[in-house]
Amino acid sequence: MVAGQGDKLVIAIDVMGGDHGPRVTVPGAALALKREGEKRRLHFLLHGDEAQIQAELNRHPDLKAASTIVHTDQFITMDEKPAQAIRRKGTSLFNAITSVKTKDARAIVSAGNTGALMAMSRMILKMMAEDLERPAIACGWPNSNGMGTVLDVGANVTSDAHQLIEFAIMGAAFHRAVRGVENPKIGILNVGSEDVKGHEDVREAHRLLREGGLGLNYYGFVEGDDLFSGKVDVVVTDGFTGNIALKTAEGAARFIKGLLKDAFKSSPFAMLGGLLASAALKVMAKRVDPGASNGGPLLGLKGIVIKSHGGAEAWAFSNAVSVAISLAASSYEDDIKKALANLSKAMPVVQSSALPKSNAVADAGQAVEETKVS
Amino acid sequence: MVAGQGDKLVIAIDVMGGDHGPRVTVPGAALALKREGEKRRLHFLLHGDEAQIQAELNRHPDLKAASTIVHTDQFITMDEKPAQAIRRKGTSLFNAITSVKTKDARAIVSAGNTGALMAMSRMILKMMAEDLERPAIACGWPNSNGMGTVLDVGANVTSDAHQLIEFAIMGAAFHRAVRGVENPKIGILNVGSEDVKGHEDVREAHRLLREGGLGLNYYGFVEGDDLFSGKVDVVVTDGFTGNIALKTAEGAARFIKGLLKDAFKSSPFAMLGGLLASAALKVMAKRVDPGASNGGPLLGLKGIVIKSHGGAEAWAFSNAVSVAISLAASSYEDDIKKALANLSKAMPVVQSSALPKSNAVADAGQAVEETKVS
Repeated sequence: MVAGQGDKLVIAIDVMGGDHGPRVTVPGAALALKREGEKRRLHFLLHGDEAQIQAELNRHPDLKAASTIVHTDQFITMDEKPAQAIRRKGTSLFNAITSVKTKDARAIVSAGNTGALMAMSRMILKMMAEDLERPAIACGWPNSNGMGTVLDVGANVTSDAHQLIEFAIMGAAFHRAVRGVENPKIGILNVGSEDVKGHEDVREAHRLLREGGLGLNYYGFVEGDDLFSGKVDVVVTDGFTGNIALKTAEGAARFIKGLLKDAFKSSPFAMLGGLLASAALKVMAKRVDPGASNGGPLLGLKGIVIKSHGGAEAWAFSNAVSVAISLAASSYEDDIKKALANLSKAMPVVQSSALPKSNAVADAGQAVEETKVS
Repeated sequence: MVAGQGDKLVIAIDVMGGDHGPRVTVPGAALALKREGEKRRLHFLLHGDEAQIQAELNRHPDLKAASTIVHTDQFITMDEKPAQAIRRKGTSLFNAITSVKTKDARAIVSAGNTGALMAMSRMILKMMAEDLERPAIACGWPNSNGMGTVLDVGANVTSDAHQLIEFAIMGAAFHRAVRGVENPKIGILNVGSEDVKGHEDVREAHRLLREGGLGLNYYGFVEGDDLFSGKVDVVVTDGFTGNIALKTAEGAARFIKGLLKDAFKSSPFAMLGGLLASAALKVMAKRVDPGASNGGPLLGLKGIVIKSHGGAEAWAFSNAVSVAISLAASSYEDDIKKALANLSKAMPVVQSSALPKSNAVADAGQAVEETKVS
């Protein structure tokens, strides 16, 4: 237990996590403080090696004044097996998550090993509802209206109807808290928009959400291209499809960027054209920069856990910290609890267990395996 | 039965199919004849309204000399229910598919109603192997090496391990025939590359393909961004994931195109830049133009059936006709038959039935429903 911070909003940072450690996480936290500190009184618990953190903090006096260092010399590496990582108490990640459990912090942000973060969060914080097996990972997704939310993007390899509805509830609460949309429009990702399309689980979830009674703004089925159309704010899908859609979109963006680069190199005219348009192209590139949407919550835990891309630079990491602050300052957890309670009234767990739990076997082997978010 | 065409390669065209009908399909066939006619002696069976076809043919004397019109005044509309469409004998689509069954043509190309094409092809031509329930749809996918093949992109909502292996066999035979790669490298789409990743069906298919014995060049698991990387030539996945990945990629391309357009309009400098680079940008746009990869085979049928995008213009339709010609001129059907025979030796159908057939229920309702390919 560290010293209480009164009415301040306290965020725990796993300083040692990620490809770059303190060199990125400390300046990232400083950037977030600068941006969010005007709206709220913030304090940071910086979990990691004191000497390394101090060296970075000396360049960021504002953050230094608003931080407490929680020293440890144990860290989890990016390629450490989650099963092994969870056994090592006292690592910076372990301590950071524990500070949420002990209510010393309202949220924790880590750019570290996703599998370890997932396994350790489940172990320390526990799931919000008994039938939730593992947290879903949500991510920001640029669309015609600005930024949408997509989940699950990789935590669960298959998801039954009950889980898809839980994703809808959690995704809507997340989107409301972070993007400020009061009643986000929700769609289920499918291969067509008619009621008969898709497999049993999406159709069952669709039928139940159509019936209403959960207080959700349900639009209906959406297709792959609607991830960008902005037709809905929150797109719900199983973790297998969501992960593949996310990586397909990232692959498409990278491929087109490469073609564009080649095009601008293909002739002197094109090169001059590229130079003239470069400012405008940079603005555009920022719209599809994964750093802009960095900060994916692990949804369904008793506590706020935010995963940053492992390779994030300071600006991207600061966006993940902002997501943590927005969630921590909102009624997001209560929203989810209330909606899940409504769900168990409308669709008791006994009924949900009667639905095909197709993922039971497949998930078992993955529970503590690394899931890449990007 | 129409008059025999000797040693000519005969292609049946459903002239009335698609959003534009004869206005696109006739000039499309003429373009394909111009491109492919030097290599092979071609003949076309043009199924549809004689007067409309004649009017178009008068502008294309070469095609006129290499065609026979098979008149009918019955057509299937784009929004007609497949269940209704299959009952109507004598439509241009019905006649075109039947001409493959009667061996008057080697292949059929249609830009019409996908659901009707699918249902009618199954009814008239039948599947190649008894455990194949419905054809898989393959599509071309631009990647760093040129053009890859992805399947299934929408015919089957779920696919068990046995079906995934059948897709691998059929996809490899298709890629060899159409892209001229002797021993195409195959990958299974998954959420990670390690053996333990993904659900039971992909892991089982992965294990069996790893064992070898099917004469396939199996690489292993690939991820969403590998659809573009060119790491493999053929990417195998279930129809649900494949359809969503395809539409996600199309959505990403359209979204970025929109941003790019806005960027070039955002200032006079950017506008001038866009003008200077316009020739290079057009070359680039052609690389990701869906028309370049138009022509998706319905794989697994006793006969060659090619689906063109409904909205295809003449150039795109001509590419679908070229795919039909390449397949018809190749040993593709024998390749698949041989490989499927190897598969039933290595993995008898009795064993395959023991695998979870998770799609049985879900597919039932979709069998004759429209599946949009894009």
